[in-house]
Amino acid sequence: MTETPPPFETVTIAGVGLIGGSIALGIRERWPSCRIVGVDRPAVLAHALSSNAIERGVGDIAAAADADLIILAAPVSHNLRLLQDVGPHARTGALITDVGGTKRDIVAAARALPRPGMFIGGHPIGGAERGGFGFARPSLFVNRPWIFTPDSDASSPSPRVSGQPPAVSDGLERLFALARGLGAEPTTIDAATHDRLMAYVSHLPQLTATALMHVAGGGAAGEGLKLSGRGLLDTTRLASSPANVWRDICGSNADAIAEALDRLIAALSAMRADLDRGDTLDALFADAARWRAELLKQQR
Amino acid sequence: MTETPPPFETVTIAGVGLIGGSIALGIRERWPSCRIVGVDRPAVLAHALSSNAIERGVGDIAAAADADLIILAAPVSHNLRLLQDVGPHARTGALITDVGGTKRDIVAAARALPRPGMFIGGHPIGGAERGGFGFARPSLFVNRPWIFTPDSDASSPSPRVSGQPPAVSDGLERLFALARGLGAEPTTIDAATHDRLMAYVSHLPQLTATALMHVAGGGAAGEGLKLSGRGLLDTTRLASSPANVWRDICGSNADAIAEALDRLIAALSAMRADLDRGDTLDALFADAARWRAELLKQQR
Repeated sequence: MTETPPPFETVTIAGVGLIGGSIALGIRERWPSCRIVGVDRPAVLAHALSSNAIERGVGDIAAAADADLIILAAPVSHNLRLLQDVGPHARTGALITDVGGTKRDIVAAARALPRPGMFIGGHPIGGAERGGFGFARPSLFVNRPWIFTPDSDASSPSPRVSGQPPAVSDGLERLFALARGLGAEPTTIDAATHDRLMAYVSHLPQLTATALMHVAGGGAAGEGLKLSGRGLLDTTRLASSPANVWRDICGSNADAIAEALDRLIAALSAMRADLDRGDTLDALFADAARWRAELLKQQR
Repeated sequence: MTETPPPFETVTIAGVGLIGGSIALGIRERWPSCRIVGVDRPAVLAHALSSNAIERGVGDIAAAADADLIILAAPVSHNLRLLQDVGPHARTGALITDVGGTKRDIVAAARALPRPGMFIGGHPIGGAERGGFGFARPSLFVNRPWIFTPDSDASSPSPRVSGQPPAVSDGLERLFALARGLGAEPTTIDAATHDRLMAYVSHLPQLTATALMHVAGGGAAGEGLKLSGRGLLDTTRLASSPANVWRDICGSNADAIAEALDRLIAALSAMRADLDRGDTLDALFADAARWRAELLKQQR
């Protein structure tokens, strides 16, 4: 890559876990001159400092409010508190973003900040089976979408078309440059559309895997699990996910998740009725296989 | 491996697809002296002959009924017809087994055969995303369970304890030797228990993945699929499965699958109600993560 100047000279990352840590490592690799301060517990900061992911660590975000960019990378509900804590102290021209899996709540909360446009929500689609700085890596976002949710109500009079780049603000342009520098593919979407889509492509798969593992484990009474094939293993991979991350996501997207759950329950109930009547599930299988082929194509 | 004599000198395999083809390749590798006849369509037989998986190919199972072992490796409902076709023609002392994903129907049908004990149901837990001889490989069954379902009603006066080896018949001993020769871990279980367990660890995951892909694809309106992460990809891998294989499995295990579906629908509905009330899903997540850890342990 060419040596373009970093879009932000100084960056504060609150929460140096899998996502925050990977962003820090990615920035250091791409723009070694960039100065990064981490906010987290002492043990995490020690690990991040020794890995050269951050230059300095502090325990309180207020002590690191003077950065060009502040990234909130804690769980969703914690990010809301961090936004309130840091918002009034961020300096003029500073930008705040986050990496949370739901966007409506924090975008709405940001309307109370001193300056409109000082916050632009973000959601890098990366992730791994395990959380924590120990699993962070600079390549986490390569070829993955990084969604930004600029708030049309706060910063622009005209509504934005989902998927279309808005009349870009300087802040959004710099966030796009950051995401691209880490190998990601930045895009914009409004917060409500983001949350509704994520209910289907992220939150529903998680809850389904959890419910399936609960039912299969109980139904096979444990012993029977050793007779399963790779299918159960893959279908339930997400069931190992940490509950605390999902508590926040479910709480902040309950209405959209409820709609998705209702549709899945209806699909399973229709399946059940078809089997009862001796009907085949051929049409449903064909539809699912078609979507699956589309998914594979879109994920390359 | 030492050169023990093959448990069967001559083997007929009806259906030389992924499973039948892999058995043929595994036998040829382990016991080159064993003579294998394949029964299938001409194009499949040509492929299997050129790969040296079989020595001879025929179109009608009746023309290959004189083997020591006859393996029915077609879809479940087709195996039932093959059993009726070949049963009366198999010679004294010959053994018939199958590889179908459900076992009650074929075990019951085998009670009409001329000699009790001439059929022992089987189910090797292997498989891959794609079917057909082109994906067959001798290693498909290595370290995987191979379940046999000897019929206690037909061949033994005392009921068997699930998971415990029965007072082994000569036929079962030889099938165990065959499975071990291919690297599998043979075990026995009664047909009803097999079907109930498989409803939970195999059939329910398949139907769940299909329903989830149908709902996620529709809910995200296609476009949103490109914003998904690896979670949706893994959770829906099975949604690419061919409908025709599952038509037979669903049809022959409808009662057990209905019970499993009911439990999943109940779990999802409870989840939905918890979210509505603002309750956390922590207990369910913890239970699922515990079963998932157990599954990983049992699968090594």
